[in-house]
Amino acid sequence: MCELLAMSANTPTDLCFSFTGLTRRGGDTGPHKDGWGVAFYEGRGVRCFHDADASASSRIAEVVQTHPIKSEVAICHIRQANVGDICLANTHPFMRELWGRYWVFAHNGQLNHFRPSDGFYEPVGTTDSEALFCDILNHLRTNCPRDAAMETMVSQLVRLSRGYAAQGVFNLLLSNGDWLFTYCTTKMASITRRAPFGPARLRDADVTVDFESETTPDDVVSVIVTEPLTTDETWDIYEPGEWRLWQRGEVVMSGIEAPDQRTAD
Amino acid sequence: MCELLAMSANTPTDLCFSFTGLTRRGGDTGPHKDGWGVAFYEGRGVRCFHDADASASSRIAEVVQTHPIKSEVAICHIRQANVGDICLANTHPFMRELWGRYWVFAHNGQLNHFRPSDGFYEPVGTTDSEALFCDILNHLRTNCPRDAAMETMVSQLVRLSRGYAAQGVFNLLLSNGDWLFTYCTTKMASITRRAPFGPARLRDADVTVDFESETTPDDVVSVIVTEPLTTDETWDIYEPGEWRLWQRGEVVMSGIEAPDQRTAD
Repeated sequence: MCELLAMSANTPTDLCFSFTGLTRRGGDTGPHKDGWGVAFYEGRGVRCFHDADASASSRIAEVVQTHPIKSEVAICHIRQANVGDICLANTHPFMRELWGRYWVFAHNGQLNHFRPSDGFYEPVGTTDSEALFCDILNHLRTNCPRDAAMETMVSQLVRLSRGYAAQGVFNLLLSNGDWLFTYCTTKMASITRRAPFGPARLRDADVTVDFESETTPDDVVSVIVTEPLTTDETWDIYEPGEWRLWQRGEVVMSGIEAPDQRTAD
Repeated sequence: MCELLAMSANTPTDLCFSFTGLTRRGGDTGPHKDGWGVAFYEGRGVRCFHDADASASSRIAEVVQTHPIKSEVAICHIRQANVGDICLANTHPFMRELWGRYWVFAHNGQLNHFRPSDGFYEPVGTTDSEALFCDILNHLRTNCPRDAAMETMVSQLVRLSRGYAAQGVFNLLLSNGDWLFTYCTTKMASITRRAPFGPARLRDADVTVDFESETTPDDVVSVIVTEPLTTDETWDIYEPGEWRLWQRGEVVMSGIEAPDQRTAD
């Protein structure tokens, strides 16, 4: 399987601390050594780093850990391969342009018998995750107008997610740079840090940060993961079937799909 | 304006030497300090690095200079902004997926009165270059079948390039990972290195390489640039209106559009 990490913030914020914790699990404290990737939105642009090697020993991951890249939305993934070879083309996060914006996607899980519909977007690699991403974008493109309101798009995403979730494990991170959509079938947790900020200690590395010294009182920074990254903070665990839409560090829409609904589509 | 660099090779080869020379021109030996980017194909995957800062002083560019990333096709760009703000979204090379492959594009020049046709692909940033790229892909998608032969696509690309060239400066690098299409209106040069390999010295940095020690006798590695990078080798200068299609280090198709043809479309 794999692990996921995302950030939503109301001010450009670096991901060094969380990224350092997650990437230890890529071949050191965890088995997710089959590649890693991270995408940082900067305005409408996206800065990506991908590697098909273990993140714990990657020179490029080391640079990302120590070189503060400021972003309001970031998505990160470390991979333990199941479907698809270990190669760059199969390394999350995946990115496509839709309606003049870059969309970024990372996924944890596996769907049984998933068959994507034909459409404009096609996978380049051989993972079911990338095929899922293309399927989502093809559905959005078909079913939403170009200038659709966020609520319209989210309603489509919830409907689609419910369908995927009925077919297997589907823990999702998806962003268009404006908002971040998250969906949990088995494991996801979040933490929102705001004033008064305190210290935090990573679970996977001997690293402590004092957020007080790195923030202003107005900052709101949320981190969403498949497994909590720190030992001394209280993470908010998603329910199975729960989705949350993040914008500027806050949950702006959310819901929980009951299990019977989740298998009805 | 800006400068371009591409590589086509018959074996995975790193770009450290040429990249080191080019990136000096991004704020040190040249004025192209408004961002830089590079895309390396690895199989069907692409590894990209982008920065909206000067390449000559970029920490990430330094990593790319010293960390050998092996690729058979690479495209690099350093920017001196004319159209479009200095920001990540306006930083070449640009990438889109078409027919299940990543396509990568970088451009030097400026077209007067260019108006892209509407289509599926849309620019995310505000450069005329990215609009051009989207226009090219929209035309290919409309006018070629999904499984078009390389010759069919190239014929379309030559026809399109002729039209763009009639509107201004259009020095182009475009690849789908299989081949690399290059088109020159004002400046482009190439060099093909093959056995017996010799040494080479950069024009922009005190760096010499002995390719003999870094290659095997079967290697064929071509580098295409807007301005030659070395002082002690003979570069093959493109004619205005000349295009060359590169594959595995060799020119596999080429042609020259006469000036009257170039303004006829």
